[in-house]
Amino acid sequence: MNVGDLPTPALLVDARALERNLATMAAARPGDALRPHVKAHKCTAIAAAQLRHGHRHFTCATTREMVGLAQAGIGDDLLLANETVDRGRLAGIAGWQDRVRMTVAVDSAATIDAAATAGVRDVLIDVAVGLPRCGCPPEDAGRLADGARAEGLRVRGVMGYEGHLMMVADRTEKAARVAEAVGLLRAAHADVGGEIVSAGGTGTYDLHHEATEVQAGTYALMDTDYAKLGQPFELAVSVLGTVISVSRRWAVLDVGLKALALDHGNPDVDGGAVWFCSDEHLTYAPADGQRWPVVGERVRVWPAHLDPTMAKHELLRVVEDDHVVDTWAIDLAGW
Amino acid sequence: MNVGDLPTPALLVDARALERNLATMAAARPGDALRPHVKAHKCTAIAAAQLRHGHRHFTCATTREMVGLAQAGIGDDLLLANETVDRGRLAGIAGWQDRVRMTVAVDSAATIDAAATAGVRDVLIDVAVGLPRCGCPPEDAGRLADGARAEGLRVRGVMGYEGHLMMVADRTEKAARVAEAVGLLRAAHADVGGEIVSAGGTGTYDLHHEATEVQAGTYALMDTDYAKLGQPFELAVSVLGTVISVSRRWAVLDVGLKALALDHGNPDVDGGAVWFCSDEHLTYAPADGQRWPVVGERVRVWPAHLDPTMAKHELLRVVEDDHVVDTWAIDLAGW
Repeated sequence: MNVGDLPTPALLVDARALERNLATMAAARPGDALRPHVKAHKCTAIAAAQLRHGHRHFTCATTREMVGLAQAGIGDDLLLANETVDRGRLAGIAGWQDRVRMTVAVDSAATIDAAATAGVRDVLIDVAVGLPRCGCPPEDAGRLADGARAEGLRVRGVMGYEGHLMMVADRTEKAARVAEAVGLLRAAHADVGGEIVSAGGTGTYDLHHEATEVQAGTYALMDTDYAKLGQPFELAVSVLGTVISVSRRWAVLDVGLKALALDHGNPDVDGGAVWFCSDEHLTYAPADGQRWPVVGERVRVWPAHLDPTMAKHELLRVVEDDHVVDTWAIDLAGW
Repeated sequence: MNVGDLPTPALLVDARALERNLATMAAARPGDALRPHVKAHKCTAIAAAQLRHGHRHFTCATTREMVGLAQAGIGDDLLLANETVDRGRLAGIAGWQDRVRMTVAVDSAATIDAAATAGVRDVLIDVAVGLPRCGCPPEDAGRLADGARAEGLRVRGVMGYEGHLMMVADRTEKAARVAEAVGLLRAAHADVGGEIVSAGGTGTYDLHHEATEVQAGTYALMDTDYAKLGQPFELAVSVLGTVISVSRRWAVLDVGLKALALDHGNPDVDGGAVWFCSDEHLTYAPADGQRWPVVGERVRVWPAHLDPTMAKHELLRVVEDDHVVDTWAIDLAGW
């Protein structure tokens, strides 16, 4: 099949760009030095490709991602890098522990109690390192670890996500601020113990010399926001649209905000400048000097934020040039 | 079941507020004077409720919504108020024409040709009335109608969506600008003929005295953006979250931008002020003087943009106070 035959909007992944991104990261952080975050793609087929590149441990944001990977038989050590007090869902994770190592992040007495009650065996202490979101204050980490051990949990170490630093453009400033965040995490680790110090993301993957593992996800597929950082990863995901209406000043695609996430800004569009997106449409001005678009032609749109864009689709079309060589399910979305 | 027993994030609709919204609109634009837009809710159970309130004709944005309503046996006159040249999907619509009247918007020779080739019988001429999106220039409408009739299509009239005027706050200015847009549509209708003049939305539903029908959708469920207009419709949809982490300055819910749309801004949260949303989290500052939240408690979040929020969920929990009285499928999402 050719991309021209696909119903639109259609989510496309460039198979060769994906492979190059995976190889580049596997060279920089081989094997267990990377714990790929599946929330970026929500797709077991891509997780399987990351496994083939040598990464056996995975990071998840939801219990559905944890159970979905386990059901697919991908990875032997899965981390829920997020808090939950949903005992039913935690028990669903715990049910897999004889086959897959399942570890859950905790940052409070309540999350520790929920994990222990649900039968979870392994936890990491989640430490706040500057992003105002989950994670305990570094000075509380040791006390929480003691509490977890008192409830019979194994405490494998610490994690801390410096999400507020991913988009810092200046490399020197970024390195200094990451070192500061890592300092907080290291202090917590001294109090907590355990073999794991988990941190980072695509924006900081090459600045973590003390972390035992990095939780990068976006690198595999990328988006226009991360692409601004100038890292050695290529844009591999686009949304294919069809021109459905043309006027003398603008053209309209059938790719709207139901098909791509706008929370990091408008997408880029091949051959034009985006005016705005609405639910089912993208209005753009074709570039000066370009042939004016005609109704029916296909145009690729490049999302600014990968993760929630993936969540808006059920299928990912794997393409090489204009040939559709495979179709993968986005099978880890939802909760 | 109680809302406290639901896994979160969970999309809730207040059954009584929905009923009041439907009754208020049915009194203002009874029966066929309203063609409810199902893109706002994407839910056949809500379309069935609109039918019970007397509206037999429906508006759709996608072929999936058209076919989904037909399969559910809801409505006897469905309008695709959007352009497509996908002959396969148009043929899917045409296959229902012996049981349901199916009408498709067209705004170019290419869309007319696609409809005719696919076996569609009825079209409306979509006219641009100020929003830079689909629709032909008003002066081209008559020529397009002639072209459609030459291809054997029945031209039922015109439609024009003044989407750029929905959020105009000043009522006098809004009325004047709607009248201007309607003037363009009326001029096109004079050239096109037919029994239908379809226009408007929730933001302008009470300003259309010349339209034969209004395409309002949001009024049924509402969002915080439309609520600013002070219309007689209540917020009926919220996303239920669980507090998963608490610090001395903020609290975190498990409701992020994967569970609600941010393209009209941040949501509102009961008992606090939103700092920011990330993929799976909402960080907020509990209001001064409020009891500080504890991990595990439930909080309702009020989305700023209804339609794409609905598209992020599979189920809608119908609640009266804190009781879950029914569960409806969001069964018209996708394309």
